[in-house]
Amino acid sequence: MIDQQELSIDTSGRGSNDITDAVQRLVGASGIKKGICQVFIFHTSASLMLCENADPDVREDLETFMARIAPDGDPDMIHTAEGPDDMPAHIRSILTTSSLSLPVDKGRCALGTWQGIFLWEHRLRPHNRRLLVTTMGEPGS
Amino acid sequence: MIDQQELSIDTSGRGSNDITDAVQRLVGASGIKKGICQVFIFHTSASLMLCENADPDVREDLETFMARIAPDGDPDMIHTAEGPDDMPAHIRSILTTSSLSLPVDKGRCALGTWQGIFLWEHRLRPHNRRLLVTTMGEPGS
Amino acid sequence: MIDQQELSIDTSGRGSNDITDAVQRLVGASGIKKGICQVFIFHTSASLMLCENADPDVREDLETFMARIAPDGDPDMIHTAEGPDDMPAHIRSILTTSSLSLPVDKGRCALGTWQGIFLWEHRLRPHNRRLLVTTMGEPGS
Repeated sequence: MIDQQELSIDTSGRGSNDITDAVQRLVGASGIKKGICQVFIFHTSASLMLCENADPDVREDLETFMARIAPDGDPDMIHTAEGPDDMPAHIRSILTTSSLSLPVDKGRCALGTWQGIFLWEHRLRPHNRRLLVTTMGEPGS
Repeated sequence: MIDQQELSIDTSGRGSNDITDAVQRLVGASGIKKGICQVFIFHTSASLMLCENADPDVREDLETFMARIAPDGDPDMIHTAEGPDDMPAHIRSILTTSSLSLPVDKGRCALGTWQGIFLWEHRLRPHNRRLLVTTMGEPGS
Repeated sequence: MIDQQELSIDTSGRGSNDITDAVQRLVGASGIKKGICQVFIFHTSASLMLCENADPDVREDLETFMARIAPDGDPDMIHTAEGPDDMPAHIRSILTTSSLSLPVDKGRCALGTWQGIFLWEHRLRPHNRRLLVTTMGEPGS
């Protein structure tokens, strides 16, 4: 049994967006009780991550970390067509992931207590980001 | 056909733990011969990796690398609730992965000769880490 | 329905190789219309990435970035059995991925307009790299 649904997220510029509830709703609506759920983003300058979901400081620290290893306006970068945050956005996407593969149990993504699913916008300006959520598995009683 | 099993690993503090045999046992017991196996960890301060399995120096060098880019006690990090290794553990998890998606062939995870499946503990102290192994595919003769 | 096919790629040394067409051909030939496709590489010194596919400067900048954080001949690395690019190749693989999980829709991997599937060779010399492409899902009309 396979269910595939698009998800559209408007970001407000660089930063992380908790999409856990949106993904859980799609998995719940699919009727699939056990299997896997793949969350995929159709972009190379925004990415996905599973991250600590309780303290927003964690995600602020992640921005600090990324700004250190992949800073905007890096003079060594030659792909700057869309501005100083263009290439850093690609680097940050490569270092995280475009695709999350999650387990499904009892009709929901089985996550740890402190795990949330985040869309991480790496561009400075707001963007509309499209995702595809594919759930595969068996229906249950 | 779907098989889903928990795995519980006690780590002895920061370092990598070879869980290849434990995962292969679960895949073998599932009766699934061809498909995929998803290994998922329910934590955000320990992660998974596929790594060279022959020379332990590789994993020691990976620790050296991570200590350089995500050092304990980094004064720029504000999420330090659980100590100087708290935020570095989250960063190291984000840079590696919480979920491994592996191919299954002939009733086993098909891995390269030098590939092992490792649970990478990023906290300094020992922790009990819970994983979920989901195998999907077709049974064979 | 499951289809599993090997892919063999000869690299010409460090750099990225667009394997999008090769993967799409396998998915198309599988007859699977909706589901997921897993691309897996059997090596720990070459890896996979989804990357911007229009401007080659992006991939040149990614090399620049990796050369900065995981340089060849790093004096702190002890695993140097195969040369100064040995351990950097493992680090670069760990920071990217050995396994890509992609959605399949209408008999093809559903990718964003600017997303390409790349095999990233991290060793300086040419290598033959083996991959396994597993497609799971339902056939369509």
